[in-house]
Amino acid sequence: MPEDNVIYIGNKPVMNYVLAVVTQFNSGSNEVVIKARGRSISRAVDASEVSKNKFLPDIKVTDIKIGTEVMKGERGDNINVSFIEISMSK
Amino acid sequence: MPEDNVIYIGNKPVMNYVLAVVTQFNSGSNEVVIKARGRSISRAVDASEVSKNKFLPDIKVTDIKIGTEVMKGERGDNINVSFIEISMSK
Repeated sequence: MPEDNVIYIGNKPVMNYVLAVVTQFNSGSNEVVIKARGRSISRAVDASEVSKNKFLPDIKVTDIKIGTEVMKGERGDNINVSFIEISMSK
Repeated sequence: MPEDNVIYIGNKPVMNYVLAVVTQFNSGSNEVVIKARGRSISRAVDASEVSKNKFLPDIKVTDIKIGTEVMKGERGDNINVSFIEISMSK
């Protein structure tokens, strides 16, 4: 799957990401992957659910992965951050 | 699966829930389900990841479900809230 089917969730309102998901499917993608780290994980689930329930009734969640990434902290230390990847398909 | 294998994630520090998961497995459960709604979803993923990576290396995440629940808002209106259920097994 090409990387441009991936939507990274940040701190913007949920509807921004819903719009991104809907646009991606409407432009011909058969699969979209929503990725988020840390506190944005809740927003990723919201974005997936709102996209599916309100705008894309034919789309299914086909896979959900969770895991831990090691990132560099502000003082150069390693910090563990949880992530989620939600795959949605036509 | 009996309901007492379910750990509900609220607003306490992640380690409280990690302790609950570890205790549940150590007391003989073969499966634990971590449930969370709304903003606690991120904490549920953290609790699952920390339990698995730091304390329970033999436990696997066997299923992850996401969905939407309708709840009553403060003014009696219906509000949609996302939830996650993470199943972990020996």
